[in-house]
Amino acid sequence: MMSGEVRDYQVSAWLMAVCIQGMTLDETVSLTRAFVDSGTVLDWSDIDGVVVDKHSTGGVGDKTTLVLAPLLAAADLKVAKLSGRGLGFTGGTIDKLEAIPGFRTQLSNEAFRQQLQSVGVVVCSQTADLAPADGKMYALRDVTATVDNIPLIAASVVSKKIASGAQVIVLDIKAGCGAFMKTEAEARALADCCRAIGRALGRQVETVISSMESPLGLAVGHTLEVAEAVRTLQGEGPADLEALCLRLGAVALTEAGGAADLKAAEARLKTLLNNGQAFEKFVAMAAAQGGDVSVLRNPDLLQKAPQQISVPSPEAGYVHGIDALKVAEAAKVLGAGRPNKETPIDLTVGVVLNKTLGDVVLEGEPLATLHVRDKGLDAAQRAILEAFSLSSNPLTEQAPLILTF
Amino acid sequence: MMSGEVRDYQVSAWLMAVCIQGMTLDETVSLTRAFVDSGTVLDWSDIDGVVVDKHSTGGVGDKTTLVLAPLLAAADLKVAKLSGRGLGFTGGTIDKLEAIPGFRTQLSNEAFRQQLQSVGVVVCSQTADLAPADGKMYALRDVTATVDNIPLIAASVVSKKIASGAQVIVLDIKAGCGAFMKTEAEARALADCCRAIGRALGRQVETVISSMESPLGLAVGHTLEVAEAVRTLQGEGPADLEALCLRLGAVALTEAGGAADLKAAEARLKTLLNNGQAFEKFVAMAAAQGGDVSVLRNPDLLQKAPQQISVPSPEAGYVHGIDALKVAEAAKVLGAGRPNKETPIDLTVGVVLNKTLGDVVLEGEPLATLHVRDKGLDAAQRAILEAFSLSSNPLTEQAPLILTF
Repeated sequence: MMSGEVRDYQVSAWLMAVCIQGMTLDETVSLTRAFVDSGTVLDWSDIDGVVVDKHSTGGVGDKTTLVLAPLLAAADLKVAKLSGRGLGFTGGTIDKLEAIPGFRTQLSNEAFRQQLQSVGVVVCSQTADLAPADGKMYALRDVTATVDNIPLIAASVVSKKIASGAQVIVLDIKAGCGAFMKTEAEARALADCCRAIGRALGRQVETVISSMESPLGLAVGHTLEVAEAVRTLQGEGPADLEALCLRLGAVALTEAGGAADLKAAEARLKTLLNNGQAFEKFVAMAAAQGGDVSVLRNPDLLQKAPQQISVPSPEAGYVHGIDALKVAEAAKVLGAGRPNKETPIDLTVGVVLNKTLGDVVLEGEPLATLHVRDKGLDAAQRAILEAFSLSSNPLTEQAPLILTF
Repeated sequence: MMSGEVRDYQVSAWLMAVCIQGMTLDETVSLTRAFVDSGTVLDWSDIDGVVVDKHSTGGVGDKTTLVLAPLLAAADLKVAKLSGRGLGFTGGTIDKLEAIPGFRTQLSNEAFRQQLQSVGVVVCSQTADLAPADGKMYALRDVTATVDNIPLIAASVVSKKIASGAQVIVLDIKAGCGAFMKTEAEARALADCCRAIGRALGRQVETVISSMESPLGLAVGHTLEVAEAVRTLQGEGPADLEALCLRLGAVALTEAGGAADLKAAEARLKTLLNNGQAFEKFVAMAAAQGGDVSVLRNPDLLQKAPQQISVPSPEAGYVHGIDALKVAEAAKVLGAGRPNKETPIDLTVGVVLNKTLGDVVLEGEPLATLHVRDKGLDAAQRAILEAFSLSSNPLTEQAPLILTF
């Protein structure tokens, strides 16, 4: 495919056959290996310590990388994370990091390696030569209705991670209306497939399946999410975001041999949030990559959208649901989304939820605060009102955030 | 697709989906209509008489068009036949006609129309603007393993015939080892699909399913087949070839209202072979298209390959089978096949069977005569020996040539 010997129209016919008839695990492993072999495979064997990596299949308000990467580095793991920009409704981690003035998201291989050794954590843009065949095939899948297939998704995700060179790989697989996998069963099938590929190719691939029905945390929008990540790294983040970061971190730490079991690992990581070490690691990473750390020490200094406008509740009730896709839609119409690769995004706009699942809301109380520049206000307000499901009865049973791991 | 709005890689993904999941009749009819509408549709409404056309799905030694076209014209039908060149093991009708010195296979629309009116029969190359979308899609099918699908084949075949403008269309659908459809069941499914498309699009499409286990007639190779067609048009052809031509012709003649039933039609057509009128129509067509008719009146004048070499039987026995594909292979290695569009073919080389199904063969008696120029002799001899199945028992029951109609 990369040599042009197999033509696009042949690849797309094969993709459709795979989408309809599936692939065996052997075939999926072969495809993954071919993706990996199509480009550079990074080698961290000269780095002291266990190199870990994480990947999320993407969700609304998902700023876990910003928390997890420094948190694991504070626990003496080496975190080498190559990340992407966002497309569609969710911003990518790289976009979010650019909300920190001066933060360099493109590093030379040598700078990456030095920072990984000295600071213990690097998050930067993935270069084009990691699994380039995957990128080429994804472009074809996108235009031939062949995106939605578990073995193809698994091969794509795992190949990029294997090419990135980490020994321990933790995948956060989202399930729900705001995720690519709509059901827990699909998410589980993807998780199983990814772990099986990892086993076949000699890498420790671990998976956590987490809910993406409502946004993760309260903030959706690039700068707003950085501020929320900072609070979480200081032990003051939203409960759901902290819980997910602790669980993903505990899986990685246990796998890497840094804790006896998940419980011990979570306890150690929680301490690192509370004692400021995780936050200081984030500051050290930002400093190493040229970022202005004053905005991390005082998030009030982060750039702000010109207007903050509340969306009052038209009625009283208990919050039974907050539709992640609707909240994402609100952030997108305000300018936080990227309809195509070329469009610049507004890093300051977005949504901060004032109410979360189970909360009681009085009539006229704000459901959310919109951070607005010059567009999308009406549509965003409508989307927020549609996102919230209120009931006159208290929410007695809340669906779990972490579905399985 | 023709405008480039739908890209090749999208068409090929769709083709694979169709190959795996099938198409409904409505979808198949829509595709056929789209093929027809992508180019010119010929209109013969100003021609006196019923315009008929035939098409064969292709087999080894299949020279039925050379016999059937003049035969039906002799029965007062108008035969407008646009034909193709061969690819792979079988030569096309156009290649065979070029064995007649001077025969023009490319005619202007006006010359075609005049000859159809005055002589009653034209066989020439199909121009590119009939159902061009079919040609474009076929090229993609050829390189994406999506050729083998009955609705796609049916849409391709019927669209070309509808664009060719005939009122009555007879399809000879071959089943067997030497045909594209290997089983009678597949051939029947294709026949049913073609007739249903014709019905939906308001054309009389009739089908005959005929066996293609052994070659049709005795001659395989362009000039050799012309000579056999001439003998058949004079009432002296091999029994199987004559029987198939009479049956295909009878179906067309009955459909066109030229006979009360198949039996009456076959009798009338048989008379036209025996009294020389069918042959004279062939001569008239060849003359109108610039061909040297002396080679038709005396086929000994046709060009010959330099050597005629017998393949003696290594043993005695009764002929129970002659594998059509093996005989085709023999003709191909001698130079009669066209491995790709650009390769010139040798019109004189090929195979003439000396024995046919049920014949008794003595040890050392010739099974076939190879017409050889400068290559392929050894391989052709081996292929002929492999083609023949001999048994010590007489052949008591011969499989029927015409399977269903």
